[in-house]
Amino acid sequence: MTDTLALIPAGIDTYRQPVIYMHEDCHICRAEGFAAQTRVRIDLRDQWVIATLNVVARGEWLAVDEAALSASAWSAIGAKRGDIARLSHPEPATSSSRLRAKAYGERLTEQDFASIIRDTLDHRLTDIDLAAFITACAGERLDDAETVALTRTMQAAGETLDWGGRTVLDKHCVGGLPGNRTTPLVVAIVAAAGQMIPKTSSRAITSPAGTADTMEVLAPVTLDERALRRVVEAEGGCVIWGGALNLSPADDHFIRIERPLDFDSTGQLVASVLSKKAAAGSTHVLVDMPVGATAKVRSAEDAEALMARFLYVGEAIGLRLALHLSDGSAPVGRGIGPALEAADVLAVLRRTAGAPKDLRERALDLAGKLLDLAPQGLCQAGRARAEALLDSGEAEAKFLSICAAQGGFTEPQLAPHRVEIPALSDGVISAIDNRVIARIAKLAGAPGQKVAGVRLGARPGDRVSRGQPLYEIHAATPGEAEWARGYAERHADVFAIAEEPE
Amino acid sequence: MTDTLALIPAGIDTYRQPVIYMHEDCHICRAEGFAAQTRVRIDLRDQWVIATLNVVARGEWLAVDEAALSASAWSAIGAKRGDIARLSHPEPATSSSRLRAKAYGERLTEQDFASIIRDTLDHRLTDIDLAAFITACAGERLDDAETVALTRTMQAAGETLDWGGRTVLDKHCVGGLPGNRTTPLVVAIVAAAGQMIPKTSSRAITSPAGTADTMEVLAPVTLDERALRRVVEAEGGCVIWGGALNLSPADDHFIRIERPLDFDSTGQLVASVLSKKAAAGSTHVLVDMPVGATAKVRSAEDAEALMARFLYVGEAIGLRLALHLSDGSAPVGRGIGPALEAADVLAVLRRTAGAPKDLRERALDLAGKLLDLAPQGLCQAGRARAEALLDSGEAEAKFLSICAAQGGFTEPQLAPHRVEIPALSDGVISAIDNRVIARIAKLAGAPGQKVAGVRLGARPGDRVSRGQPLYEIHAATPGEAEWARGYAERHADVFAIAEEPE
Repeated sequence: MTDTLALIPAGIDTYRQPVIYMHEDCHICRAEGFAAQTRVRIDLRDQWVIATLNVVARGEWLAVDEAALSASAWSAIGAKRGDIARLSHPEPATSSSRLRAKAYGERLTEQDFASIIRDTLDHRLTDIDLAAFITACAGERLDDAETVALTRTMQAAGETLDWGGRTVLDKHCVGGLPGNRTTPLVVAIVAAAGQMIPKTSSRAITSPAGTADTMEVLAPVTLDERALRRVVEAEGGCVIWGGALNLSPADDHFIRIERPLDFDSTGQLVASVLSKKAAAGSTHVLVDMPVGATAKVRSAEDAEALMARFLYVGEAIGLRLALHLSDGSAPVGRGIGPALEAADVLAVLRRTAGAPKDLRERALDLAGKLLDLAPQGLCQAGRARAEALLDSGEAEAKFLSICAAQGGFTEPQLAPHRVEIPALSDGVISAIDNRVIARIAKLAGAPGQKVAGVRLGARPGDRVSRGQPLYEIHAATPGEAEWARGYAERHADVFAIAEEPE
Repeated sequence: MTDTLALIPAGIDTYRQPVIYMHEDCHICRAEGFAAQTRVRIDLRDQWVIATLNVVARGEWLAVDEAALSASAWSAIGAKRGDIARLSHPEPATSSSRLRAKAYGERLTEQDFASIIRDTLDHRLTDIDLAAFITACAGERLDDAETVALTRTMQAAGETLDWGGRTVLDKHCVGGLPGNRTTPLVVAIVAAAGQMIPKTSSRAITSPAGTADTMEVLAPVTLDERALRRVVEAEGGCVIWGGALNLSPADDHFIRIERPLDFDSTGQLVASVLSKKAAAGSTHVLVDMPVGATAKVRSAEDAEALMARFLYVGEAIGLRLALHLSDGSAPVGRGIGPALEAADVLAVLRRTAGAPKDLRERALDLAGKLLDLAPQGLCQAGRARAEALLDSGEAEAKFLSICAAQGGFTEPQLAPHRVEIPALSDGVISAIDNRVIARIAKLAGAPGQKVAGVRLGARPGDRVSRGQPLYEIHAATPGEAEWARGYAERHADVFAIAEEPE
């Protein structure tokens, strides 16, 4: 009797949570019992991972002397088919008692948070544990000092980029609006102004596009630290995917649980943003906060509490912060989805006739404030400087240089399948539901299909007639176009159209 | 393009949470995106279930036009291989906003709880949502009125047994100790006294044996309501598995998440116990509360808060309650595991020489208090009456009649493989770790293997010499015996042995 089994890939993507599949007649499995959330430690050579056990019935695809691993468990230990792994009981997570203490309302120390984050990164904490941790911190249950401690320990758990004491600008948007792709524009303008802005961005988690997805339409974004430094030293700025850099790595785990829960925890939101910024080596950060009924921050009151916490923690960890409130009532620009948003960005940089004005204005506001915030600050003249850099074409040139340095610029493509969705009545558009329109773009294939998404044909305030196109679904395949159209037809109220008084 | 796929069984036991496995190239899967916690509604004929999506890579065991279902999803819709199911987006859980409100610290109404429980039973809430709900209620975050509302809605979500206005006695033990199998004894004594005690019990979730598992060694326990009534009308009592009766069905979902989190929520604990008792039609309930460092209730203070909440809610929903504090410092009896505990129960009923005294005393205490609590109460004379019924053999006879009525009595078997674990030093046993000893019994195969578990050879207070057996591991296979022994050897401190002063 041994505690080893031969590994095979299950080929199942359980989205980061490692899962091990064992045959119900396997001796190890029987000894473990069939309970939910049983955890198994898998050792292979000098690698190990802790996975959740799922039991496979006899007669199915798994042999009794095999264990199958989910994609994340498979890659975590670098397994090859037939490798013999050793299975054992993981020691219980040492942070469990601290997590429980927080659930009961106790205050946690920096050491407590460090232990929770270590166990999170080691997969010792399950998704259920993480949901409990996030809920235990929900609302205002983390105080100022705890938020500082959490931010510091999240940063310390990963790499920190060192820019040799220079001023490093950065921006962040809290709870993005669909289509609000200001980042490439702000980077182009600020870098054109001679400032340093090495921007690391994320891919979409539940949205139709993250900044990294959109930027990837235009240039490569998966750069390691050396390549990042090369681009930034040459151009002053970049827009790359931060995922390859191990900056505040626990954040991805928390976000994975926070998104489906749809919780706003002031402390965790601030720690998430600022730990990543500190890890990226930023010194001066502008935080954009769109406020609106279907945005993440829903009221001016919520925004105020959040701003106060941002300023407190920024000060404590030595970041210069500025906050910017913006209108979060509707999507920004025309396009929603990687290629469609990339096209909007290019139109603004190129000053073409159809370039979305709202996106341009937002980018100028942010770039201007960021230039004002820099130590060699422009004293309120940042906005004018930003406008000059954009209108002169200097921002466009800088952006193309950055793309070239990242590996080469590519023009965005148009989707081969497009379906127009018409207005069902006459009237004036009073609102667009950010969440529903994002859903439609995702059903069309965004962000996995770069060309997929939604192109808005009308905006709040526009007068429309029955039958006039409100928006166009873009898809890579006819199937996806149809799938999105079906959903769109069942959600005709995504555009609220108010009848005009006679 | 349709939204249908052919169903096959995945044969994977994901322990109640329904999971659907779809091929990564499947059009529905692509439209859904690859995010964690994506939910899919599966309609087949007039049945439906909501499942979590896992994505299977090409080249693995699933075809592109198939969807595989986990065991729970498969049985929920009564699928047969090749059935064509319709897949769609479930409407979001209506209770999500109430769950979020609770996470932020708001008080919930009976209507709010009803909505959360409905969505729990429909699998609209994920395990992550349930973990958030449980954490949001953790500690003292449910007040008296909320606990009453939760209890009522949990009861109302399932069946309620109607006993025609008669007095119905019941008992419950909060957070069982290993081996503390008093229930069959209490039922035998109380039924022998002429009282009605239709006991529904649970199977083990994380422990080596539930009352239903132990009772199943001695007699069938899976009875429907009709069979239950037949047994109780004939014998006055029964000990059956409650799982077939749909009493407070949401409780199982909550427990599945609470156990791995190891949270004590006063409100949820009370609602869990009392909703099940009310649903079983009980009128007079004795709650046993073992208090000890490694028991569920760890201090007299905790016990007091819990008692107060029990009494408040009992009164509000019309249950007569009595509470009993007992010693929770160590396992009870000799055996841990279904057959070993059944043997202890029989030894007490048969008054054999080796019958565990502590189990006998506990059963008499509880039976006595329950007889005192009944309306035709015995005014403190219950204990003496219980003792008389046990010593006269009337309780034994009653128990055998109940077993016969449930389908026939069977003598417990002895495990074929047994391993003795010796003391490593001389001294006096000062404590036994309830949690570790339970783990060893589970590794030996309990409760899946009825004969498996641990038989204690010594108890706290006993003097032992180096090499003397402390306990014996019982297993159905040599492999399981070895597996448990390996763990036992790594946890020699499960028995704390204090050196005696010279």
